[in-house]
Amino acid sequence: MPEPSLQSPRTTVKRLPKRGLYDRDAVYAILDEGLVCHVGFAVEGQPYVIPTAYVRIADTLYIHGSAASRMLKSLSGGIPVAVTVTLLDGLVLARSAFHHSMNYRSAVLLGTARLVEAPDEKARVMAAIVEHIVPGRGAEARPANDHELKATSVLALPIDEGSAKVRSGPPLDDAEDMALPVWAGVLPLRLVPEHPIADAALATGLAVPGYVAGYRRPR
Amino acid sequence: MPEPSLQSPRTTVKRLPKRGLYDRDAVYAILDEGLVCHVGFAVEGQPYVIPTAYVRIADTLYIHGSAASRMLKSLSGGIPVAVTVTLLDGLVLARSAFHHSMNYRSAVLLGTARLVEAPDEKARVMAAIVEHIVPGRGAEARPANDHELKATSVLALPIDEGSAKVRSGPPLDDAEDMALPVWAGVLPLRLVPEHPIADAALATGLAVPGYVAGYRRPR
Repeated sequence: MPEPSLQSPRTTVKRLPKRGLYDRDAVYAILDEGLVCHVGFAVEGQPYVIPTAYVRIADTLYIHGSAASRMLKSLSGGIPVAVTVTLLDGLVLARSAFHHSMNYRSAVLLGTARLVEAPDEKARVMAAIVEHIVPGRGAEARPANDHELKATSVLALPIDEGSAKVRSGPPLDDAEDMALPVWAGVLPLRLVPEHPIADAALATGLAVPGYVAGYRRPR
Repeated sequence: MPEPSLQSPRTTVKRLPKRGLYDRDAVYAILDEGLVCHVGFAVEGQPYVIPTAYVRIADTLYIHGSAASRMLKSLSGGIPVAVTVTLLDGLVLARSAFHHSMNYRSAVLLGTARLVEAPDEKARVMAAIVEHIVPGRGAEARPANDHELKATSVLALPIDEGSAKVRSGPPLDDAEDMALPVWAGVLPLRLVPEHPIADAALATGLAVPGYVAGYRRPR
């Protein structure tokens, strides 16, 4: 069994420590809702931050990419990474500029990624990434063939160290500002699907699947 | 006049180079639409990636935070950073798992950030961040006072080096997959506001301002 807590000195939230969470359930809920992660790594002292698709399987985060990318070339040697997933929930409008904020949930993982080389693990991850992004899709899309698996790189980051940070709720103004004649509150934001756009070359008679028409992220 | 192109060897898009853009207009449009950036930096070889608010003013990206945070303590010494803004536009469902993708626009900046210390520059940036996130709000919220300005750190990153990467349009399947009986297309995604939630302690008679009721990101 892995440790239930992901806390370490370097993942301890220093600023506004009340917002920090370290249990796997809290971190995994954020990872499982998100669609894009931001992967940070350094090459010769220069940091890079690259957005990419991912999936969590049990206690491992898998990052998808191409063997051609700078990121994967650098990371496959087993260098330290940070992976951050941020969900933006709303804008917090306080009476004072200073107390403006955002409601959000973010998860940060630290660790060393390894390149996934076993074809069966790669195939499982590729299918899981599709299913993570569009639940229900994995059973329909043509699975990757050997050639495609070779052309794809996958990185695995064991989830041992990390944290979540959450802000929710109304603005927190100073007492002396409460009577200011300024509207205050929260404007919730949500990532929502619009109408699906069928491919122009789609074979006739193929309806929009239910998992597309009714798409929504878990929460 | 700054150079019109932000391209450098280390910001040149290697994977799918057709998706790379280097002109300031393309990069600035992404920066100006986004709400959250991901800042990457390394401390003793360990990368960190932190989401935070920001604003672009002319050819400088300003990053907001607290003097207490690990990020700002590390960055104020003038260490190299990467700042990435990602806008997710849709999910691309191809007939094959391999050709699944996302439509997105992302901007990556590289450089060295400096701590902003002049109170007037700090005040201007704090007001601009509020106005960037909620256009129209800057004129209403109580401006930061000296005490609040002291409690806030602001970093400035000159925009000299970076790139944008954009994917748009339908799935691109292989010719031999086009007849598969699998729905294919794009599910557009959009970050939209829901109904504003007034603060429970709001003074009576304060209506939701137009810039909140009609909120939308520039695009």
